[in-house]
Amino acid sequence: MNLKNIPAETLSTIANTIRIVSAEGVQRANSGHPGMPMGLAEVALVLWLKYLHIDPSDPKWLNRDRFVLSNGHGSMLLYTMLHLSGFDVSINDLKNFRQSGSKTPGHPEYRYTPGVECTTGPLGQGISNAVGMALAEKMMAARYNTAEENIFSHRTFCILGDGCLMEGVSSEASSLAGHLGLGNLIAIWDDNHISIAGRTSLTFTEDVLARYEAYGWQVLSCDGHDVQEIDEALGKAVAETGKPSLIAARTIIGKGSPNKQDSSHVHGSPLGKEELQLTKEALGFAGEEDFYIPDTVREIFSNKQETWLTARANWNKQFSNWQNEHPVLANELTQRLEITVPDDLEDQLLAGMTTPANKAVATRQSSSEILQTLGKIFPALVGGSADLEPSTLTVLKGEPAVSKDNFTGRNIHFGVREHAMGAIMNGLSYYGGFMPFGSTFFCFADYMRPTIRLAALSHLPGLFIFTHDSIFLGEDGPTHQPIEHLASLRCMPGVVVFRPASSAEVAVSYAEGMRRKTSPTIIVLTRQALPPLETDCSINDIRKGAYVAFETDSGTTPEIVFVATGSEVSLAIEAAKQFANARVVSMLCLEYFQRMDLASQQKLIPAASRKVVVEAGSPFGWQSPIASDRNDVLVLGIDRFGASAPAEVLAAEYGFNVTSVVEAVRDTFYR
Amino acid sequence: MNLKNIPAETLSTIANTIRIVSAEGVQRANSGHPGMPMGLAEVALVLWLKYLHIDPSDPKWLNRDRFVLSNGHGSMLLYTMLHLSGFDVSINDLKNFRQSGSKTPGHPEYRYTPGVECTTGPLGQGISNAVGMALAEKMMAARYNTAEENIFSHRTFCILGDGCLMEGVSSEASSLAGHLGLGNLIAIWDDNHISIAGRTSLTFTEDVLARYEAYGWQVLSCDGHDVQEIDEALGKAVAETGKPSLIAARTIIGKGSPNKQDSSHVHGSPLGKEELQLTKEALGFAGEEDFYIPDTVREIFSNKQETWLTARANWNKQFSNWQNEHPVLANELTQRLEITVPDDLEDQLLAGMTTPANKAVATRQSSSEILQTLGKIFPALVGGSADLEPSTLTVLKGEPAVSKDNFTGRNIHFGVREHAMGAIMNGLSYYGGFMPFGSTFFCFADYMRPTIRLAALSHLPGLFIFTHDSIFLGEDGPTHQPIEHLASLRCMPGVVVFRPASSAEVAVSYAEGMRRKTSPTIIVLTRQALPPLETDCSINDIRKGAYVAFETDSGTTPEIVFVATGSEVSLAIEAAKQFANARVVSMLCLEYFQRMDLASQQKLIPAASRKVVVEAGSPFGWQSPIASDRNDVLVLGIDRFGASAPAEVLAAEYGFNVTSVVEAVRDTFYR
Repeated sequence: MNLKNIPAETLSTIANTIRIVSAEGVQRANSGHPGMPMGLAEVALVLWLKYLHIDPSDPKWLNRDRFVLSNGHGSMLLYTMLHLSGFDVSINDLKNFRQSGSKTPGHPEYRYTPGVECTTGPLGQGISNAVGMALAEKMMAARYNTAEENIFSHRTFCILGDGCLMEGVSSEASSLAGHLGLGNLIAIWDDNHISIAGRTSLTFTEDVLARYEAYGWQVLSCDGHDVQEIDEALGKAVAETGKPSLIAARTIIGKGSPNKQDSSHVHGSPLGKEELQLTKEALGFAGEEDFYIPDTVREIFSNKQETWLTARANWNKQFSNWQNEHPVLANELTQRLEITVPDDLEDQLLAGMTTPANKAVATRQSSSEILQTLGKIFPALVGGSADLEPSTLTVLKGEPAVSKDNFTGRNIHFGVREHAMGAIMNGLSYYGGFMPFGSTFFCFADYMRPTIRLAALSHLPGLFIFTHDSIFLGEDGPTHQPIEHLASLRCMPGVVVFRPASSAEVAVSYAEGMRRKTSPTIIVLTRQALPPLETDCSINDIRKGAYVAFETDSGTTPEIVFVATGSEVSLAIEAAKQFANARVVSMLCLEYFQRMDLASQQKLIPAASRKVVVEAGSPFGWQSPIASDRNDVLVLGIDRFGASAPAEVLAAEYGFNVTSVVEAVRDTFYR
Repeated sequence: MNLKNIPAETLSTIANTIRIVSAEGVQRANSGHPGMPMGLAEVALVLWLKYLHIDPSDPKWLNRDRFVLSNGHGSMLLYTMLHLSGFDVSINDLKNFRQSGSKTPGHPEYRYTPGVECTTGPLGQGISNAVGMALAEKMMAARYNTAEENIFSHRTFCILGDGCLMEGVSSEASSLAGHLGLGNLIAIWDDNHISIAGRTSLTFTEDVLARYEAYGWQVLSCDGHDVQEIDEALGKAVAETGKPSLIAARTIIGKGSPNKQDSSHVHGSPLGKEELQLTKEALGFAGEEDFYIPDTVREIFSNKQETWLTARANWNKQFSNWQNEHPVLANELTQRLEITVPDDLEDQLLAGMTTPANKAVATRQSSSEILQTLGKIFPALVGGSADLEPSTLTVLKGEPAVSKDNFTGRNIHFGVREHAMGAIMNGLSYYGGFMPFGSTFFCFADYMRPTIRLAALSHLPGLFIFTHDSIFLGEDGPTHQPIEHLASLRCMPGVVVFRPASSAEVAVSYAEGMRRKTSPTIIVLTRQALPPLETDCSINDIRKGAYVAFETDSGTTPEIVFVATGSEVSLAIEAAKQFANARVVSMLCLEYFQRMDLASQQKLIPAASRKVVVEAGSPFGWQSPIASDRNDVLVLGIDRFGASAPAEVLAAEYGFNVTSVVEAVRDTFYR
């Protein structure tokens, strides 16, 4: 749509409609953020009417432009635009802003609103997800476009605020986006000079554009209320295909509110009835009912919808030609969009291993071997490490690295950027057709924790692979030794943590990770070699998340049940051998165990047995701090930080050898 | 020391001594990182021999330059320099590198090694701590220097690597350092083009110097193996007092190792005996015993030590004049260096409140009022918020904001930079004389989690204030609603979490936070108003971390004990009133409760009573997943994400009203 053909007055009416509907939504909810939508109305109208290629009737169209509202508190802007564009977001939905069960929650939430590509609100995440989406498009285009058909040929647009730019995660992701030359990424900075605490001059005086130029971005600026200037800047951004672009759109927060614009007061509170009235008067909407949309505005968007539909129909033809001409590629694309996991996946993964089953092996090594087979079966599997791949062993061998010059690769060098790694993984998952993996040392899961939470909240798949999972990494010391990390992730809703003890358990962890298409999976692995488990249990048993790995006498109820995970399972088995009637349950996944019914749980861990947990991590969570009989469960864990020393020295010091375990059990239960 | 007077050959011998001793330490430990110390030997010698103002005989001297090794894996460089400079780090300590209980752990650990200012290893933290230290010096200088005496007049030097520069936390902190014009901060980047995964060109091609220039830093570069060039760059850095400086020192990782230098192989593994031998031969140390330090080297450092001692003696005179001339200031300085907490602090804090005790009040509001009094009593208290001060209510009223032009203030605008906020708080704590506080919404504690862990690991004090502590923040929705956050911090060693239910509990939380001088304290507060608790218990009871807030019948053992925290205590009390013989225990601090002996615990929560936990957060940790009698404890928590809706709607939906609680208890225990 050529904006020059639309009279200035009409453009102004569109912008003011966006302003007022957004402010009314916030006013009606009596909570929310009117300032940002009012400031960005012109930017939004240019973006939607001229630049975005979407299909409101099919919000999941493969080749749609992605739009991410990184400053998610301005959600009413997005909802208003979705409504105007013809997505399934009604005036009634707008009226239900921030109400229980509505399509219009306080911050955009993925999976609940057609047209919302991404959950945002925690600042810095959206722009970093957008980097992941832009990377996804590049990878898809590299793999599936042909000389005749560019079936992937869209852009990712992102609006972000000062807050997003101040957050470290966006710095990490933006540096990587520049490195990879993601010319399909266009970010628009709402440069309004206001943050919650007041003017940004209080704390944020860096030269943002110079910084982004240093990252390798094209940088542009415009008056964010001048439609022609915005258009020109976006035109240049779209024309630059070798670099991502950042446009500084100088705006006035809350523009249109006579008494509150350009102040932090308009950021996070409703205008108030009176000021809203004054705003409507000032903008020529005096006397109009709430959520009023003038016919001229409806008409413009209705025309735009036709343009979108025509473009979509053209793409459909192209896509169908492509499908016919490239059945192998088309088939692979279908497969990756709907990952189907064979029931015998674990067997396939184990069959592909090179380390013999009877040899001691670190679970990170089993993981490495299993990942090779997994990569061959699932083209959707792509990922990498935050600069620790030689230690986490997560390279897909024989696959090139993703680079500016080659996006056919499947190994991503994230750099020492754990937080961006998580956000980019989420971006790939939002995009669809990817099962991303990312790896670092378990201790540094903390650096990317907000992204794991957002994956869980947004129901995104993803394999978060964390190696060096206990004090047994040894000499690197307490800064690198996880203690509380298992507990801190087990308590997060929607997340499942696997701590496998053997290659078979590693295979199950990965297979279940692939099966969990709407939740992230955490796989926690050892640095050190573990002895092979001599157990005859089946993959089906392991898949339940807990199973009997050893018992001295299978005929009777065990007197003691050791519950252990990962590297402590073999230790528990050796300890169990010192007792007449003991059992060891390997609990590779506590969350799965908790899903069993009580009878099944108690079949594994009978109520009558004494229970001993052996896990080289925080005891938190295994024992109730207020239960009547706290001696019912003995927890051999670690409730302090680790230390720098060889692993075997630490084992003795922290009580993780057979002698110590046996002694602790005897002390508690037999004296 | 004028380096031009030292013969080139001697400089070379010093550098090679540093190289070889460092590499030998790693070799002997059979683990560690030789590449960095070998690459930075010349930089270290220039820094130590010409620029650092320290007193090896008094590692805690107030006006010492601070040195931070942000790329902490190069710890052998630091240990070698400490040894050469005459700190209490012997050759034997160097030989014990990475052994249990040694002064020379794998990564530098604060409090264990004289001269180690800061725990480093997790990348990006050290440089961000250094920003905090530089800020600390500016604040001390502004407050205590006089026209005659500059008793605070030192610099903070930091060496950092590519990894530190890639981490988001360093971006946040560096932006703030530029904003504040911290001319007393000098960072030297080990620009060696190598990271663990290989050459940095794989993932890190941004223009680092241009980025730092955009932050407002002076940027410089030099050949990191040319002593004169390094000297010149440091000279310029020292001369610039209005801006922090970043020096790119182009180095060759592992320089001196004939077959391994300039490759990622020399980053994180010992050279190997043979290659070490070849290195010694190449550097003219063939045949010398291990850890050999030539006499020329000893002599140079011995001369340097004399210079240091003289300078220190001069400062002592100046300081003593200052003490005599400014007894009030001197007294305040002593007070802030050794914070003494009066036993009746809680009473003083409550007396200073303006909200009447019988009025409903949000705990964030009580916190705000209490913070004012706390600030008046303790000049060491400084802090701020990550751009949420109007919501977290953590401004010290009447105190100016810290700015480039005024460092006498005590309110720090951290900007939307939670991670840097935590790291800068830690920097202030490392510095001494500060009790820092930092605040944001509880949900965003995740963004700064690595810094909380490091505070705990390094035994640093600090008040981490998190408001908006549950789904009851309402409409902002699940991205802002904490669920797992209480559990995820309770499991962290060395950390104590307070979730107060009343103003009295808030006062205790802060007072205990002040008393905890070697551990961080987390205080979790509500957005919403809470009814006042009608309880006659004393401050001493509350200080224990758990106390009886209500009971229907104090004469007998209660049939039911409700255990609640924060906003759920008043709810539990209302529910308890529906039962004939019930008690409510307010457990503001689970960690303190767990420190009581079993008898005291069971006096509060008798083994014979039924137990009901009411807490609007993850149930994880309250109930053992494997205990025999899991019905012994009923947990009314939240094991899924929140939702965007008004708080009272959520209360009904998530079972947090009197009807729901009573019903759940009846269902579990009375049917």
